[in-house]
Amino acid sequence: MDFSSFVTSLVTSFVIFLVLMLLFVWLSRKPGNAVVYYPNRILKGLDPADGRSSIRNPFAWIWEALSSSEQDVLNMSGVDTAVYFVFLSTVLGILALSGVILLPVLLSVAATDNAANSKSISDTSSNGTFSDLDKLSMANVKAKSPRLWAFLIATYWVSFVTYYLLWKAYKHVAELRAKALMSPKPEQFAVLVRDLPNAPKGQSRKEQVDSYFRAIYPETFYRSLVVTANKQVNKLWQELEGYKKKLVRAEAIYEESKKGNAAGIRPTNKTGFLGLVGEKVDSIEYYTGKINELIPKLEAEQRATVREKQQCSALVFFTSRMTAACAGQSLHAQMVDTWTVVDAPEPRQLIWNNLTMKFFDRQTRPCVVYIIVFLTIVFYMIPIAFISAFTTLDNLKKLLPFLKPVVNIAAIRTILEAYLPQLALIIFLALLPKFLLFLSKAEGIHSESHAIRAASGKYFYFVVINVFIGVTVGGTIFSTIKTIEKHPKSIVSLLAKSLPSNATFFITYIALKFFVGYGLELSRLVPLIIFHLKKKYLCKTEAEIKDAWFPGDLGYGTRVPGDMLVVTIVLCYSVIAPIIIPFGVLYFGLGWLILRNQALKVYVPSYESYGRMWPHIHKRVLAALLLYQLTMLGYLGVKKFYYTEFVVVLIALSLIFAFVCSNKFYPAFRHTPLEVVCHEPKETLNMEQIFKSYIPPSLCSEKLGDDQQEDAFSQGSKSVSVV
Amino acid sequence: MDFSSFVTSLVTSFVIFLVLMLLFVWLSRKPGNAVVYYPNRILKGLDPADGRSSIRNPFAWIWEALSSSEQDVLNMSGVDTAVYFVFLSTVLGILALSGVILLPVLLSVAATDNAANSKSISDTSSNGTFSDLDKLSMANVKAKSPRLWAFLIATYWVSFVTYYLLWKAYKHVAELRAKALMSPKPEQFAVLVRDLPNAPKGQSRKEQVDSYFRAIYPETFYRSLVVTANKQVNKLWQELEGYKKKLVRAEAIYEESKKGNAAGIRPTNKTGFLGLVGEKVDSIEYYTGKINELIPKLEAEQRATVREKQQCSALVFFTSRMTAACAGQSLHAQMVDTWTVVDAPEPRQLIWNNLTMKFFDRQTRPCVVYIIVFLTIVFYMIPIAFISAFTTLDNLKKLLPFLKPVVNIAAIRTILEAYLPQLALIIFLALLPKFLLFLSKAEGIHSESHAIRAASGKYFYFVVINVFIGVTVGGTIFSTIKTIEKHPKSIVSLLAKSLPSNATFFITYIALKFFVGYGLELSRLVPLIIFHLKKKYLCKTEAEIKDAWFPGDLGYGTRVPGDMLVVTIVLCYSVIAPIIIPFGVLYFGLGWLILRNQALKVYVPSYESYGRMWPHIHKRVLAALLLYQLTMLGYLGVKKFYYTEFVVVLIALSLIFAFVCSNKFYPAFRHTPLEVVCHEPKETLNMEQIFKSYIPPSLCSEKLGDDQQEDAFSQGSKSVSVV
Repeated sequence: MDFSSFVTSLVTSFVIFLVLMLLFVWLSRKPGNAVVYYPNRILKGLDPADGRSSIRNPFAWIWEALSSSEQDVLNMSGVDTAVYFVFLSTVLGILALSGVILLPVLLSVAATDNAANSKSISDTSSNGTFSDLDKLSMANVKAKSPRLWAFLIATYWVSFVTYYLLWKAYKHVAELRAKALMSPKPEQFAVLVRDLPNAPKGQSRKEQVDSYFRAIYPETFYRSLVVTANKQVNKLWQELEGYKKKLVRAEAIYEESKKGNAAGIRPTNKTGFLGLVGEKVDSIEYYTGKINELIPKLEAEQRATVREKQQCSALVFFTSRMTAACAGQSLHAQMVDTWTVVDAPEPRQLIWNNLTMKFFDRQTRPCVVYIIVFLTIVFYMIPIAFISAFTTLDNLKKLLPFLKPVVNIAAIRTILEAYLPQLALIIFLALLPKFLLFLSKAEGIHSESHAIRAASGKYFYFVVINVFIGVTVGGTIFSTIKTIEKHPKSIVSLLAKSLPSNATFFITYIALKFFVGYGLELSRLVPLIIFHLKKKYLCKTEAEIKDAWFPGDLGYGTRVPGDMLVVTIVLCYSVIAPIIIPFGVLYFGLGWLILRNQALKVYVPSYESYGRMWPHIHKRVLAALLLYQLTMLGYLGVKKFYYTEFVVVLIALSLIFAFVCSNKFYPAFRHTPLEVVCHEPKETLNMEQIFKSYIPPSLCSEKLGDDQQEDAFSQGSKSVSVV
Repeated sequence: MDFSSFVTSLVTSFVIFLVLMLLFVWLSRKPGNAVVYYPNRILKGLDPADGRSSIRNPFAWIWEALSSSEQDVLNMSGVDTAVYFVFLSTVLGILALSGVILLPVLLSVAATDNAANSKSISDTSSNGTFSDLDKLSMANVKAKSPRLWAFLIATYWVSFVTYYLLWKAYKHVAELRAKALMSPKPEQFAVLVRDLPNAPKGQSRKEQVDSYFRAIYPETFYRSLVVTANKQVNKLWQELEGYKKKLVRAEAIYEESKKGNAAGIRPTNKTGFLGLVGEKVDSIEYYTGKINELIPKLEAEQRATVREKQQCSALVFFTSRMTAACAGQSLHAQMVDTWTVVDAPEPRQLIWNNLTMKFFDRQTRPCVVYIIVFLTIVFYMIPIAFISAFTTLDNLKKLLPFLKPVVNIAAIRTILEAYLPQLALIIFLALLPKFLLFLSKAEGIHSESHAIRAASGKYFYFVVINVFIGVTVGGTIFSTIKTIEKHPKSIVSLLAKSLPSNATFFITYIALKFFVGYGLELSRLVPLIIFHLKKKYLCKTEAEIKDAWFPGDLGYGTRVPGDMLVVTIVLCYSVIAPIIIPFGVLYFGLGWLILRNQALKVYVPSYESYGRMWPHIHKRVLAALLLYQLTMLGYLGVKKFYYTEFVVVLIALSLIFAFVCSNKFYPAFRHTPLEVVCHEPKETLNMEQIFKSYIPPSLCSEKLGDDQQEDAFSQGSKSVSVV
């Protein structure tokens, strides 16, 4: 990439960003768009944009984001979001502190050593014209030069800055988590029990669980909720809910039509497939009939479920947080594969289907999943190539004959032929996070946040291996092969040249990512358009309109791996081509600013894990640091520097640092420390309400729970406590 | 080793065994020796040998050992000893079941395939005369022969027998442990807390611990005992105890002398070094004076210790076993390196000096220790060679001139010159277990039984690597080098030959070990001689005589690794030279019989860890099995068997088996499962007595503990419970 195309790319990205930002300023001031730009504030019952300031100054949002404190984020969006900002500011700090030293020193050291090396490379390589940018990188330094000392010391500097800031951040996050856990939460009173052994004869599951836990915790045991097989009842419930929604919609349409015409037009629909075929009926009557028909069915199924479909898993509630925290950490049964007790997640996080998975499955499934993920990462190009080959235009014409007239137009034909393979790749990459989340759930993980963390980890490896390593090594190999044939010994000097020249590619990649990516993020163009389309053509009721603008969460599952890729790239090139650092700083600075705005005003977290994402992030930043140190070890070796081995010390230090951190901080993230929950709450929580929050919606019914003694939710009588 | 010398060696060993057994029968019937042959029964207040039976039949002990049940062992010697017998009988079972199939099948398969292979070897090797024994081994089978299928299947058979019996044994031991833990033990009410953070200003350590645990466990907290620095007070106390013993002895001597002479002779001693030099004084007066002088000193020091020398570690007592079990498994503090809580060991097992070791030290010291152990295992010959070189006779003469007249005698000179290096080796091997125990304690382990397990593990690696691998590979290499020079390609066939020929060496080694070793064990010749010598010349008081015959414990630390070496050898050779199996069966059969007698009648366990040795034994039997499978993989490869790769399946199976076992059974050994301790005891234990049992003897004093509020043992008043 030469200098002018590099600048062109940057300028283009920047112009797009400016346009998007102006769009945001313009669109966000229209009152009709408030639900798209301030949904979090609206849902919390606050005034969309503090009224005055947004009218006075179009860039007030920047000031608001900058002046917001961590406490504001905690209040508006919870601990997980605050932890994400700790990550952003930590990385920002690492890059800024590195840049302050590395930019002036290394650039001057590299730029003044231009003559000899560039000549020697132009002797051996076929296209030895150095671009202006490459002159500012380490490639410009002679092999064996004593100037390499500066680069070695810079490697040490970056590493130590990273250790220091990561340590501080881990400590800070641990305090955030402890502070958040100190005030009582419903899930702190519950534990999840899996792998119940077969119930003794004459005892129901419910009695078994109650008697077991009442024997161990006679004073603090509250009651238990046996997990049931809900497939049938869920199906009926969803059907019922669907009809209820349709009924409300039909009534809204009827009301609407009354305005123009006093009698109104009663809406009709067809009973067949997708409402397209079949008999035409009056909607309101039809849906009311269906609902009346389903309600007794559902109730019968609910009763059958809680009584007969009890599974080998249960939620147990205690009246004391201390007991629940102890129980979650203690071994209960003599044999480990029975009575496995873990902390219960939030009710909204429970992956109900995985609760009943057997111990053996939970041990073996991850192995299978890891193999699948490994194969996906390494061979993901194969199915895409296969699909592209299959979906040629000729095949398409055969399979979908109605496309023929379109495809036969020459212009469209050319475009389709050019873009079909890329389309397959784009679709694959868009579906990948969902696929990885599906795989993570298939492992048997019981909480949503944990599954997302697991998926995010897999995505990180996919991204780093395929994008970073793939581009670097791939680019080097392809540009090298021809020259190697002529001068086999030039491979080393070529490798040395390829690494820094990839830097310009990554700089434009990062710039595109932050200018266009964050521009789109801030302007929310896509959600805005979708909302207005839905509002105009689809939504009839208030609930449907709310669904249309409901913002969702920040999406750590894909956001964190994306950021991690940038961390990895910038760290790895920080010493080789320090010019990349300002772009990294811009990425995380702009990201911090824009996401702060989004976190405060737009996104609504869909769960709260009290910072359990952090150990995961910490480990991956360290992995990036290790990759960086390995790169430097290799690159200094390529430069034939005599003291390259000093980098090995750093690698050992990183491993020790990782070990110490995970020993010192991680246990408090895995379990709840007892000193945190030992202060009993001032106002006691309503235990009954906590219990009810864990009952799945499809089983919530007034008629259930209190009359039968043996169903999954009933309050067991004290008489069963005799063991 | 040829056949005749093999038989000679076996016969010699057997004769020695017969002599030792007859000695035992003869000596054990003399009433004066009862304290040497039945100390465990005597200490438990039982009649030494059930009276009648031992007189009627000199071999009654065999019948008694065979008819004793596991419950007898549990009653007489505790769970650890019972677990050791589970180990012996499991290995016995593995070898017997293997032998039943392998001996008839493999011996006939090997013996009938003699011609071709033995000829081909005698062509290539310099000394290709096959002994009769080698004909019965796998070396006698032709390369690539389909007969190798029998050996492959045999490998599978031995592995599956091992899996099955190990699984059964682990289950059985887990039940034994659970049953033993179910009845209340003092240590179940206590936990050990380490790494206390600095006490807040104005709070003593004692108050800090009390307030922390009272906040978390308001209902079940009983009291705490802060660990103190006892070096000074221990020294004074030992001095005092020494003088007390000497006073009793002096009085006994005086009483004795009165029998002959009415006035008696008052004993005297010299006050200088070792009682050899210095002023001569009246012993009784001198010691009484010393004691009177020391008592106030000791009391002052005791008071100073409990008040001012409180360390960053404490024992905390609860009134409920459940709470203590929960506490030992739960994370207490936000930061892991503070308030580390673990289950407390028995009072007699506490390694008081290690309790105050810092968290950081406990993490780093094991690494240093492992490096030292690794170096010891690999390079242990170097210091021995160095010492042997240094302790030549000429050096000895220079350093210890008084030896000159002895050394100058020709006969003694020759003997010394021949045996000095061996002497160094023998002394080294005798001191090794002590050295390894010292290293294990230096790791910072807080309980005696754990330190012994750790030392035993280190000894196992030393023994297996140096004896088994050393002899096999070493023997092969030395006998090979010469031939390789002539025929470089013969190395493979020679290796195939060397492995089985080492089998005869190991057979004689095992036979020597069980005939002579168990003979000495049963006859207890050495303790008997020492006891009689001490009784005659040294002991004056009853306490001294009891000390002289006190039997000590079974000594798992060295016994288990020794047995493990035999397991490793027999397993590894079981298929290659099945003739070794009967010797292995004899070793473990005889061992079971003789040690059963010793466990019931002689040894007194010095601690009880409720079978925590088992996971350790289990892992090492599996390690031996893995080594065996690797050996078979290599040896079948040497035999050019086409289906050698089938052994890889077995290796994978072993790893999976180890993983499953450690996941299923191990947690119940690491922690106390709550369901085991949830049944509260019928008769409540005396909490005050439990608390007192943990106070070190040097600090036991009537005047301590109740008057001051701030010392290490005091019952903290309820007023400090406000946090």
